[in-house]
Amino acid sequence: MEWKVEMIAYSQHKPLEMAAVPHWDFETDVAIIGFGATGACAAIEAREAGADVILFERSSGSGGASALSGGEIYIGGGTDAQKAAGFDDTVEDFTAYLKLAQGPCVDDAKCELYGREAVRHYQWLKDQGVPYRGNYLPGKLIEPTDDSTLIWSGSEAAAPFYKTAKPAPRGHVIQHMGWGGGRPLVDVLEARARSLGTHIEVDARAQALITEGDRIVGAVVRIDNTDKFVRARKGVVLATGGFVFNEAMRRKYCPDTFRVNSPIGDKDDGIGIELGASVGGDPIHMDQFFTTCPWTMPETHANGVFVNIQGQRFINEDCYHGRVSRCAVDQPGGKVYLLLDVAHFQQPPDFAGISIAATGETWDEVEAELEMPAGTLSATMAVYNAHAREGRDPLFDKQVPILKPLDQSPFVALELNFETSYFSFFTLGGLKTSAQAEVLDRSGKAIPGLFAAGRCTSGLPAWGHGYSSGLSLADCTFFGREAGRSAAKA
Amino acid sequence: MEWKVEMIAYSQHKPLEMAAVPHWDFETDVAIIGFGATGACAAIEAREAGADVILFERSSGSGGASALSGGEIYIGGGTDAQKAAGFDDTVEDFTAYLKLAQGPCVDDAKCELYGREAVRHYQWLKDQGVPYRGNYLPGKLIEPTDDSTLIWSGSEAAAPFYKTAKPAPRGHVIQHMGWGGGRPLVDVLEARARSLGTHIEVDARAQALITEGDRIVGAVVRIDNTDKFVRARKGVVLATGGFVFNEAMRRKYCPDTFRVNSPIGDKDDGIGIELGASVGGDPIHMDQFFTTCPWTMPETHANGVFVNIQGQRFINEDCYHGRVSRCAVDQPGGKVYLLLDVAHFQQPPDFAGISIAATGETWDEVEAELEMPAGTLSATMAVYNAHAREGRDPLFDKQVPILKPLDQSPFVALELNFETSYFSFFTLGGLKTSAQAEVLDRSGKAIPGLFAAGRCTSGLPAWGHGYSSGLSLADCTFFGREAGRSAAKA
Repeated sequence: MEWKVEMIAYSQHKPLEMAAVPHWDFETDVAIIGFGATGACAAIEAREAGADVILFERSSGSGGASALSGGEIYIGGGTDAQKAAGFDDTVEDFTAYLKLAQGPCVDDAKCELYGREAVRHYQWLKDQGVPYRGNYLPGKLIEPTDDSTLIWSGSEAAAPFYKTAKPAPRGHVIQHMGWGGGRPLVDVLEARARSLGTHIEVDARAQALITEGDRIVGAVVRIDNTDKFVRARKGVVLATGGFVFNEAMRRKYCPDTFRVNSPIGDKDDGIGIELGASVGGDPIHMDQFFTTCPWTMPETHANGVFVNIQGQRFINEDCYHGRVSRCAVDQPGGKVYLLLDVAHFQQPPDFAGISIAATGETWDEVEAELEMPAGTLSATMAVYNAHAREGRDPLFDKQVPILKPLDQSPFVALELNFETSYFSFFTLGGLKTSAQAEVLDRSGKAIPGLFAAGRCTSGLPAWGHGYSSGLSLADCTFFGREAGRSAAKA
Repeated sequence: MEWKVEMIAYSQHKPLEMAAVPHWDFETDVAIIGFGATGACAAIEAREAGADVILFERSSGSGGASALSGGEIYIGGGTDAQKAAGFDDTVEDFTAYLKLAQGPCVDDAKCELYGREAVRHYQWLKDQGVPYRGNYLPGKLIEPTDDSTLIWSGSEAAAPFYKTAKPAPRGHVIQHMGWGGGRPLVDVLEARARSLGTHIEVDARAQALITEGDRIVGAVVRIDNTDKFVRARKGVVLATGGFVFNEAMRRKYCPDTFRVNSPIGDKDDGIGIELGASVGGDPIHMDQFFTTCPWTMPETHANGVFVNIQGQRFINEDCYHGRVSRCAVDQPGGKVYLLLDVAHFQQPPDFAGISIAATGETWDEVEAELEMPAGTLSATMAVYNAHAREGRDPLFDKQVPILKPLDQSPFVALELNFETSYFSFFTLGGLKTSAQAEVLDRSGKAIPGLFAAGRCTSGLPAWGHGYSSGLSLADCTFFGREAGRSAAKA
């Protein structure tokens, strides 16, 4: 377990005072730690602003968690793709959605800034060379199955979101055939960063920050098992991702992640959070995490109904699959059931680890096979179907057309088990930063010379229950840029 | 809003290096910050160990949140009161319960130490002069209505706890007529601390810690608007309580507390957490909070059934009132309903802010008056009553005798509204400390010279959903003692 060794090594590293630095191995204006989408965007902006930039990456190449993603970026407020598809999205609706999606963790300043700037950010991405086909692909998809651009990727059309913000699809995906657009997205950003003259050092692991008084003036990185001392005249940008691969941090700060099983990330060990905290940074919302199980595959399963082990519904199932999954993980007993009728059931994909728990000619038979008391699941489905036939869901306000009666026998209950089904997850808590990506101390003051973005911060995807696909890459790319710009002018 | 001013003032205070101290206004072995039960117990032990002790309290006298409590301490493993009442509690069952009550936030070392030592701790409390009548008062009580000692104060007899740990009552209450035993408890501890020669400075507000290298060697306190410099040769003990009265800290670290309305505390502004973090301390489980609404008053209401706005049950209602209340606050829509029949309903006390939302001759009528869809609440109660008549609750495993059918009409639904009913709350997150009350840094290493206990730490009551009455005072008194002892020998 590589991360255990790393965690101990890192945690012993405290900031080094500049007076104790024996020599400089690297000197630059801006030092960036981490080469996912965040680090790449920070590098591009810092270079554009005229700063010398060195980017340090602990792996042997770019990527990070960004390259494991679908390359989908949450963008709204009226993009060309939205307009072409007939959606009349506005800055106001988009911003309102972003705020709702942050729930109790809302950061108004970040939502308002990104709400205003997202369309320009989309143009910027295109200017860097990110290709977009520009079309809209309807349906309830996890990622496009072809190279389409625009998909529904959140809970926009679902309660309570639709009541506050007029729904529009906002998931903008790089032109790339099938899943896995994250890798080509990072490739484009890397090429751009390189073409602008970013100096890149790989196999370089950040160990500590270097301080001069209250100011961050560099970092210690380990290359070839040797500490190298990096002078950053203008600033250091932390772009190292979350802490999903640091079990000790998860235990202390995000213990509910132990309910689920499949961390997503690329060595995300929380080092950026630790480095920030070592100089007074303020980790917030550390209990928050994203999780999802691919229960909307095949797509007809999106019409299913979820119940917990008591046979009760707990969410309007037309929400984003990750919001539904996160609410599922709140349910007792370590599992939930997805109920389907024969008109909607198909065999789930093997990798999902979703199994058939019960079948029946009636919902009473399914209830009995699940060993639930009579009058629980069956009553839930009687109420659900009676209203679904009328096109309404008075309990959870699930909307047509996803709302459909499930009344064609035979019936089935699929089991989503938090331990054995594929519940992928990553952490959302991190350093508190300003909308300009300055790392803030516990009093809210910017720490001079230190900037951060992406999942080592608490950003746009601050609240697990409000996650929407593309929020994290929106955060990484947009606030990564802010970090690079802020550092270059520091 | 006094706390706002204070928060800003504190947050600007960073640790002071000893070299910058102009002079010492106070010199002692151990400086204790905060004079609730934690500080008093720390003072007693430090004095007993031969250390000079000065205790600084920002109010004009002792008390803190401890004095606002019921003076109830969670003690198990076989006390004389337990034995006299015929309960055969063991260290193993007690420890197992403590661990379950910490849920995902479990700290095994603290549970095991307190599990082993609690009976001796009870004797120690008596040795300090805390009076206990020694008798057992059965029933489901928030605090004893007379001067009895032993009450059920947790979820011991409820699922899932009873399955792992044999149930026993463990709430031990100071001999004091009626509610409010916290004040006399602190009075006894204060008298003892004074008699042992503790130097007490009131109206003294901690501002910053003083460091010499990695070691904490004192504190700055403000008295009469003047900074006073305190040399603590052996150590500083933080005993300042939680952050329930610091709205900015709650927003950043515990935003779910904004769902409820009535903070309990005595100027608990999180200063101890901020001071600890200022020198590398590690705040953990900052999202956790206790909340309760006095819904078990009158006691017959403990036989009620809770449903959410969907008409669904969400907890076995025989759990501790605070666990039920905490789960209630997880429910959507800002309110839950407590269902009662005429055999169990009485008018709730005015201070609870619990109102009658609906009545009916049948549960269907109650359901209709609440404007719930037909077949929701009524189905819930049909299933509940059918099984309750058989003495079982297959859905949530509520136990006899609290499990009773609610089938004597008329029926009533009481509304517990998170905003308008009395949901008191306080925070549970705080500094990570060892079982010896050393403040740990983010790598798990003790910060030399710094100790903490009580609600400025994450302690025995680490998890809001597992709270039991008396856990916080157990933590304050027991680990307050640990802090005093550890500091005295540092």
